[in-house]
Amino acid sequence: MARLVMKFGGTSVANVERIRNVARHVKREIEAGHQVAVVVSAMSGKTNELVAWCRETAVLHDAREYDAIVASGEQVTSGLLAIALQEMGIPARSWQGWQLPISTDDAHGSARILDVNGEEIVRRFENGNEVAVIAGFQGINLPSGRITTLGRGGSDTSAVAVAAGIKADRCDIYTDVDGVYTTDPRIVPKARRLDKVAFEEMLEMASLGAKVLQVRSVELAMVHKVRTFVRSSFTDPDAPELRVNGDPPGTLICDEEEIVESEVVTGIAFARDEAQVSIRHVPDKPGIAAGVFVPLAEANINVDMIVQNISAEGFTDITFTVPTADFERAKAALADAQDSIGFKTIEGATDVVKISIIGIGMRSHAGVAAKAFKALSERGINIRAISTSEIKISVLIDAAYTELAVRTLHSVYGLDA
Amino acid sequence: MARLVMKFGGTSVANVERIRNVARHVKREIEAGHQVAVVVSAMSGKTNELVAWCRETAVLHDAREYDAIVASGEQVTSGLLAIALQEMGIPARSWQGWQLPISTDDAHGSARILDVNGEEIVRRFENGNEVAVIAGFQGINLPSGRITTLGRGGSDTSAVAVAAGIKADRCDIYTDVDGVYTTDPRIVPKARRLDKVAFEEMLEMASLGAKVLQVRSVELAMVHKVRTFVRSSFTDPDAPELRVNGDPPGTLICDEEEIVESEVVTGIAFARDEAQVSIRHVPDKPGIAAGVFVPLAEANINVDMIVQNISAEGFTDITFTVPTADFERAKAALADAQDSIGFKTIEGATDVVKISIIGIGMRSHAGVAAKAFKALSERGINIRAISTSEIKISVLIDAAYTELAVRTLHSVYGLDA
Repeated sequence: MARLVMKFGGTSVANVERIRNVARHVKREIEAGHQVAVVVSAMSGKTNELVAWCRETAVLHDAREYDAIVASGEQVTSGLLAIALQEMGIPARSWQGWQLPISTDDAHGSARILDVNGEEIVRRFENGNEVAVIAGFQGINLPSGRITTLGRGGSDTSAVAVAAGIKADRCDIYTDVDGVYTTDPRIVPKARRLDKVAFEEMLEMASLGAKVLQVRSVELAMVHKVRTFVRSSFTDPDAPELRVNGDPPGTLICDEEEIVESEVVTGIAFARDEAQVSIRHVPDKPGIAAGVFVPLAEANINVDMIVQNISAEGFTDITFTVPTADFERAKAALADAQDSIGFKTIEGATDVVKISIIGIGMRSHAGVAAKAFKALSERGINIRAISTSEIKISVLIDAAYTELAVRTLHSVYGLDA
Repeated sequence: MARLVMKFGGTSVANVERIRNVARHVKREIEAGHQVAVVVSAMSGKTNELVAWCRETAVLHDAREYDAIVASGEQVTSGLLAIALQEMGIPARSWQGWQLPISTDDAHGSARILDVNGEEIVRRFENGNEVAVIAGFQGINLPSGRITTLGRGGSDTSAVAVAAGIKADRCDIYTDVDGVYTTDPRIVPKARRLDKVAFEEMLEMASLGAKVLQVRSVELAMVHKVRTFVRSSFTDPDAPELRVNGDPPGTLICDEEEIVESEVVTGIAFARDEAQVSIRHVPDKPGIAAGVFVPLAEANINVDMIVQNISAEGFTDITFTVPTADFERAKAALADAQDSIGFKTIEGATDVVKISIIGIGMRSHAGVAAKAFKALSERGINIRAISTSEIKISVLIDAAYTELAVRTLHSVYGLDA
């Protein structure tokens, strides 16, 4: 007997027929003797419809009202799934965020979960094994008593938080892919599904554009050590391979201690939506980095890679990346501060891609970066900037070389199937 | 300065454009210096869509889940109206039933309101005159903490209960008609709009098929003496006639003491969806009425008119009406009990109509009934059954004579415009 959280996204609950299919997935786990809490999103398209009504009513609208409106989508699917389960003879009830409660801060529209009270859910597990069907994406801010939402993709975060709140053995994220791959299979047909990924690795992959899971859900899973399992919702719920003991097909995101043999490199991720900004000939004196990045922070622009070389003759160059959507605003914010920073020119490019090599194993292996630089160089790919962390090497290159670079690195690190 | 509740139904909030129109109605009252709580229904069609999903998921479904699902419709419109008001510069916020709370019993799907806590609404009236936008039709059952709904048309009841809870001076029900008429204007073109109707009269009219207001909302208004005003939501919110002092066009439903000169007869109502059942040759002994009506109650069939004549030779006939939809079930229930009741035959008819003459004034006037019987007789209309109350005379006649009878009575009692 295990305690599970099962999370289903919008396409999995898009209509009553699919909701019934979700109920069959739940039934399989109940029949295997497990305790189950389900977290659901709104029917696909519903949240967009509700958001559009808010915008039509007022372009700038009260985020508290927005939250009350959009949270209604999950209210509907949680109720319908509870009915579908009951129809199959499985005791079940729906829970809205305010009913448990799932308490959050007051950052309406992108609230953070502070606590999930799972007491009543657990009591009902012990007392008749009632399935808890929880509306994802939403919570309540106490003491204002108003409905909050977690922002797009927030149902993943709800699921992990519920798993932590009820001390679940595993959090199963059912999605439209069957796991986490070594890289995007659309670019590298030889990409392999990973059986296990460490939290830290997944965090890098999620934040680097592998859109399987919301970043915050991975952070939360790491903090609370919630074993999170990414699997497909489109397989037949009654398929024999889903009835095996142990872990069914998919990718388990877990503590690195659970991964017996770490690969040096686990995956190759890439992000196309970053732009490069370089400011040239900056006087190299204390406080100059602050002089550059405070104006960007005040303009609410996220800066990612930052590269600063040692100076030559008292001047240096600083290169960094920003989301492509913020490129023009970033240049404008810097131009406004040109006098105080004292740089000579701003250069930039939007036709760039950031490619990252990720692997917990590289902490204990030398020469990982050198191997990448050599391989790219042999293919004539110029590296614009480099930044590294303990478990990641990122290079910024021309976007035209994206596929070639990803395939080359995938092969060089022995990831091809 | 007055304290108002304004209620808008589904067609008035069917899309963002109409919600904006509702906001203009509210703005007019705010500009006149009033305090306003608004009660809204779901967008027209939304509740039906949600109900259909419940039925598609399971024909017999948990009423608690049904309530959570269908209550989401009002959650959306309350939020959107709050945004629309804010966009016009009017402080406003939405309130769900569980937030105030509006507490109800646990009869999910047709719950009764037990209490409306209006403290916070009133505090916010005094402190910045914030408009309260309240989701109609819904409440919360305490202590189960689950969402309840009041049944179809429940938003009228919500509005009256909120008016009682905040001690409003008036409850304005905006609807697709501009008031209460002496009878249905589609049948009698000379029907007049009434300026005022007593609660008791409106109760009879509402229960007799004049579908302007839900019966329970009128009961509640009578108990709490909530002055309730029926008016059109389709007039231009900025029309000069709506900016008069005192009561704008519409019908006020109020205590009879507020009606200076009561007419003897206020209106003629009719109900087509009743069927007549007669059981013949029943032994006239104590307990025989119970013998007839207990089986019907057990079958959950509402009985309306009941007529029993004095007996002849120890036997009597009993005639009553039931909803046409329950006609066959009523006959079957009685047939099952034929041995214990001891009647000889069951007769019945569905092509009948109940016509009622309603007026508080008839309490102090003699001859009101006689006038009706004479007029109908002169037109050759046969009366199948008669029942009377203090303020109502009902006759059951063949449905073919409906229009003729209504027009005749409307004219006889001086109601023609």
